[in-house]
Amino acid sequence: MTDLRIGIVGVGLMGADHAERVARHTVGARLVAVSDPDTARAETLASRLSSGTTSPVQVIRDPLALIADDEVDAVILASPGFAHAEQLFACLEHGKPVLCEKPLTMDAASSLQVVEAEHKAGRSLIQVGFMRRFDPEYAALKELLDSGELGRTLLLHNVHRNKSAPPAFRSEMIVRDSMVHEVDVARWLFGDEITRITVHAPKPTSLVGDGVLDPQLAVFELANGAMADVEVFVNFQVGYEVRCEAVAERGSATIGLGSGVQTRSGGQWGGAMPADYRIRFARAYDLEVQRWVDAAARGQNDGPSAWDGYAAAAVCEAGIESLTTARPVDVDLADRRKVLG
Amino acid sequence: MTDLRIGIVGVGLMGADHAERVARHTVGARLVAVSDPDTARAETLASRLSSGTTSPVQVIRDPLALIADDEVDAVILASPGFAHAEQLFACLEHGKPVLCEKPLTMDAASSLQVVEAEHKAGRSLIQVGFMRRFDPEYAALKELLDSGELGRTLLLHNVHRNKSAPPAFRSEMIVRDSMVHEVDVARWLFGDEITRITVHAPKPTSLVGDGVLDPQLAVFELANGAMADVEVFVNFQVGYEVRCEAVAERGSATIGLGSGVQTRSGGQWGGAMPADYRIRFARAYDLEVQRWVDAAARGQNDGPSAWDGYAAAAVCEAGIESLTTARPVDVDLADRRKVLG
Amino acid sequence: MTDLRIGIVGVGLMGADHAERVARHTVGARLVAVSDPDTARAETLASRLSSGTTSPVQVIRDPLALIADDEVDAVILASPGFAHAEQLFACLEHGKPVLCEKPLTMDAASSLQVVEAEHKAGRSLIQVGFMRRFDPEYAALKELLDSGELGRTLLLHNVHRNKSAPPAFRSEMIVRDSMVHEVDVARWLFGDEITRITVHAPKPTSLVGDGVLDPQLAVFELANGAMADVEVFVNFQVGYEVRCEAVAERGSATIGLGSGVQTRSGGQWGGAMPADYRIRFARAYDLEVQRWVDAAARGQNDGPSAWDGYAAAAVCEAGIESLTTARPVDVDLADRRKVLG
Amino acid sequence: MTDLRIGIVGVGLMGADHAERVARHTVGARLVAVSDPDTARAETLASRLSSGTTSPVQVIRDPLALIADDEVDAVILASPGFAHAEQLFACLEHGKPVLCEKPLTMDAASSLQVVEAEHKAGRSLIQVGFMRRFDPEYAALKELLDSGELGRTLLLHNVHRNKSAPPAFRSEMIVRDSMVHEVDVARWLFGDEITRITVHAPKPTSLVGDGVLDPQLAVFELANGAMADVEVFVNFQVGYEVRCEAVAERGSATIGLGSGVQTRSGGQWGGAMPADYRIRFARAYDLEVQRWVDAAARGQNDGPSAWDGYAAAAVCEAGIESLTTARPVDVDLADRRKVLG
Repeated sequence: MTDLRIGIVGVGLMGADHAERVARHTVGARLVAVSDPDTARAETLASRLSSGTTSPVQVIRDPLALIADDEVDAVILASPGFAHAEQLFACLEHGKPVLCEKPLTMDAASSLQVVEAEHKAGRSLIQVGFMRRFDPEYAALKELLDSGELGRTLLLHNVHRNKSAPPAFRSEMIVRDSMVHEVDVARWLFGDEITRITVHAPKPTSLVGDGVLDPQLAVFELANGAMADVEVFVNFQVGYEVRCEAVAERGSATIGLGSGVQTRSGGQWGGAMPADYRIRFARAYDLEVQRWVDAAARGQNDGPSAWDGYAAAAVCEAGIESLTTARPVDVDLADRRKVLG
Repeated sequence: MTDLRIGIVGVGLMGADHAERVARHTVGARLVAVSDPDTARAETLASRLSSGTTSPVQVIRDPLALIADDEVDAVILASPGFAHAEQLFACLEHGKPVLCEKPLTMDAASSLQVVEAEHKAGRSLIQVGFMRRFDPEYAALKELLDSGELGRTLLLHNVHRNKSAPPAFRSEMIVRDSMVHEVDVARWLFGDEITRITVHAPKPTSLVGDGVLDPQLAVFELANGAMADVEVFVNFQVGYEVRCEAVAERGSATIGLGSGVQTRSGGQWGGAMPADYRIRFARAYDLEVQRWVDAAARGQNDGPSAWDGYAAAAVCEAGIESLTTARPVDVDLADRRKVLG
Repeated sequence: MTDLRIGIVGVGLMGADHAERVARHTVGARLVAVSDPDTARAETLASRLSSGTTSPVQVIRDPLALIADDEVDAVILASPGFAHAEQLFACLEHGKPVLCEKPLTMDAASSLQVVEAEHKAGRSLIQVGFMRRFDPEYAALKELLDSGELGRTLLLHNVHRNKSAPPAFRSEMIVRDSMVHEVDVARWLFGDEITRITVHAPKPTSLVGDGVLDPQLAVFELANGAMADVEVFVNFQVGYEVRCEAVAERGSATIGLGSGVQTRSGGQWGGAMPADYRIRFARAYDLEVQRWVDAAARGQNDGPSAWDGYAAAAVCEAGIESLTTARPVDVDLADRRKVLG
Repeated sequence: MTDLRIGIVGVGLMGADHAERVARHTVGARLVAVSDPDTARAETLASRLSSGTTSPVQVIRDPLALIADDEVDAVILASPGFAHAEQLFACLEHGKPVLCEKPLTMDAASSLQVVEAEHKAGRSLIQVGFMRRFDPEYAALKELLDSGELGRTLLLHNVHRNKSAPPAFRSEMIVRDSMVHEVDVARWLFGDEITRITVHAPKPTSLVGDGVLDPQLAVFELANGAMADVEVFVNFQVGYEVRCEAVAERGSATIGLGSGVQTRSGGQWGGAMPADYRIRFARAYDLEVQRWVDAAARGQNDGPSAWDGYAAAAVCEAGIESLTTARPVDVDLADRRKVLG
């Protein structure tokens, strides 16, 4: 299987993160090109991510040229929202799959034009960067709700807090750039459209510039009669926090507490225990093998050594003797300096 | 950078898991060969993991031949423990990096021979599969303890529980195959050797065969005077659970509750809030991009669509109007069936 | 100090509970009279709570006679809400302190008349049964918010769930009898009046009779610009749950998780550790002494016995020897049957 | 029912606490006498607790005279442990129920003499102050284990931490005064005697004087084959913490997390939701009525007022209108200053 060759448009905070991700943490993909108005920034990134690879990352100044380039199989758009429409149309024209950071475009009318253009092109090429759907906790919540185990979902309570936002982050951006995630979450979890929205503005925190309405408290009404409320607070001071509680007919389920899906059902609150070590330590195994591969490629080894294996064996031998004799047993370990010099 | 070509010896539960991991989830590595006494099992796996790739996975019946093969750069040993010694010597002989599942070998004497042989070979080639060290929670605990923030570590309390063990899992295997993880954890977290061990056997659970001492309660004494206790209970019935609490001079830290490192320090219990979304949703972004790449390689798209982007834009437009007017606003959304046919 | 002599009007579920409380768990009070339209119920209760006391509980059929009775110093009203107005006026007339279960009266107009009558009487005699203010968690939350440590409070999120409600519990009762608690909580925590309320009715749970709007989602706006949202769900199926999260300028605080006030502030989530055993075990000490007194009054002893004290001493002696010798020590305990026959 | 007249011997920290408890928080009891070598301290306390009562608290210098006094029905011993034996014998001689703070006496031999003397006296008069048995969490744990729901209990893990101990608190006092609680807990929860004890001393914390072995790690073996481990750490710096996890054949249960009994069973971790408000708010109702009685006795009222009842009624009226009209409704509230002047 040949690697998918990816070009990234826009390498600010998010785009640079994606570039790193494609180049270092994604199987079956290769970063081949980046584009950014700040050419120096693009050059630095390309140079850093090219090092040690056989396929250097190119800098292509014109985003439309990058999209059109034959060496680029697929595109990630991390450019500012106002640039998306033109770039999306280019991707559709060249038949290239595109992962577009939200927002799709700056208003509903132009977004609808994009939808219509893609439909006319006859292929599903556009994916929007609502990454919450891929978060293991949100995915588990969706699965639980869809299972019907708790009955029909009636309500969602959402909390979305940032430690702080830049001064330029105005009231309407809180809706369009922050709350938009809960808009997608509500649509996705309920599998239905939002038909009405109320956005309340309580008296703002004093720790924000004049005129910025922060926090905001929104209420969504869905076509099926369900509702959701959302607190968005982008200057919370404490840290980043995203929580969602779904209330259903026979229980509720909460995510964002950092410990998977917590449920209230059947007279109990709590969560599920993992069935075995492959679930609990899945990430540990992945990281173990990845880091071993990375180190081996450098001719190194930065994990537990043969000595660690030997020392564990010596302790276990003493342990088995202790289990048999019901007594403390001294561990018989070789002198490390003598063995390893 | 060329991919590291990996051969796996033993494709039972753990080996098959590693094969999948190398083939599908590891960047910079390629699975090229597997070996197993059960040739049919090896063939099935090789065939499944070869599909859709340009580099088929070979089955090499003789593990020593796999290790010696010029197409194999590095080896994962997931064979039974009694086979490790010979295979490790072969890896050393051929100068191949090897990731060896625990135990290193079946007893301390042969493990020491492996250590000496590797030392003589002059290269660090052997890594033992103590994967706990790569678990993000254990790694964060280690980092916290090493920072000195809580003072010197005095005690570890460990709990290690399996839902159930096969009938053949005898008392001494509980030490050698289960407790061995805590042996490594204690050595690693304290950065010191265990000098004495006591393994207590309380009256066993009735839900286990005659003569099996389960649970066990062990006490480790370390060279630096620190201590650790360990409960190992391989027939706990409830699920899989691994916990570790480190008690230091100015506080304690616990992992295995599923929510990162929980501390008790400075008059408070709790944990840290993530600073931003890239920390909280790191995994979501990785999965988003990986699945988008996987789908794009198949000519598909299984994430949020352009319609999802449009619908979110329509809701946000209404939301901004509501924020301004302090009233509920109906969402103006095109008829999906008309637009998408 | 003479005990306060208390009469209770209405001994249904709540009133009987209060009668038990006054008679058995309240210091400085004596239950002297009860009144209820169901005379048999009142007689049974009075008889049960009179047993073993020197001051029998009287049954006074007419609630106004109970209120007027010279033997009654103070009154608890646990009668139905529609009876409150007349009974409150009687209490004011006789100058008797009264603890009135909510609602004060059935509508705002009559409640205002009560307020005016009390004001005219010139003494604060009426207390309303908003018992949340006395819950240790709510009280701690109030104290934290008032301390200003988290800055000004901006928002409250409230959840109020009952396992199930009787079929006769209609939509407007959900507001008047359930949500009314959050009305008081919001007024009390903010120290301000609610100026506007919106009560949303999402599509109701199917596990409730036709026409009952359950759950409900309310939004309160306060005079000072702060806001609160409330979910009330009286047919939640799972159990009883009341939670409140206050969001302030520099952090948030949540109660109702069963573990005191949980905060998010200063980059951390968590709570406070108790400073000493008198805080942690305050309730245990109270119960220990109360039960010892109760048992002693009966000529009995149902706590840890002298034998328990002896056995603990024997174990500690062995423990101190073990601490000195670093060895397991057998406990030397007398044969209980020989000693105690 | 006449109040039990109680005398307290020793009014240091614990005794003064008990005096307050008897005088203010215990139903059916009256504090009539205190005794302490520090007469000034006893006088101050007696004077403070006498105020406002018709029965003044007497100071009786000689503890044995207090015990013998005809006005004293029952005795609490909060004197130093070395004084207990003589005072207990006096209580037995005079046939007075006695609640004796732990330790019963200073060694096992004298404790046994107390047991024998009480047995000879033919009445159970002595209760030892192991107050953990009265803690609601420990009591709930005991009830769960005794129910057999989790099968036979196999192991206990205990943690017992103090913020700090006075410099005079020596190694053996850690056993006799701190660990003694876990000794009783283990005996009580298992319903069996401890037959062997090992007390390990890891290298001590540096935040304690020379020669004090702190923390300590003990292992108890019970007659029935069960075991318990205990960490006692009296200079933990962080705060006071007592935890206990019981491991049984089909699950485990933990208390001391501040949120009742947390279980791991049936594939789940978590706890029970309260069935109704009387369980959740039991303490709030008790405090509400107690404080109302206390205030009423002073001719005051410090709870929610009639105005609070009126304001809540006004908000609910608006809420019911909003529920019907699906619109925000302004609350119609009288001007407080006009009404209340």
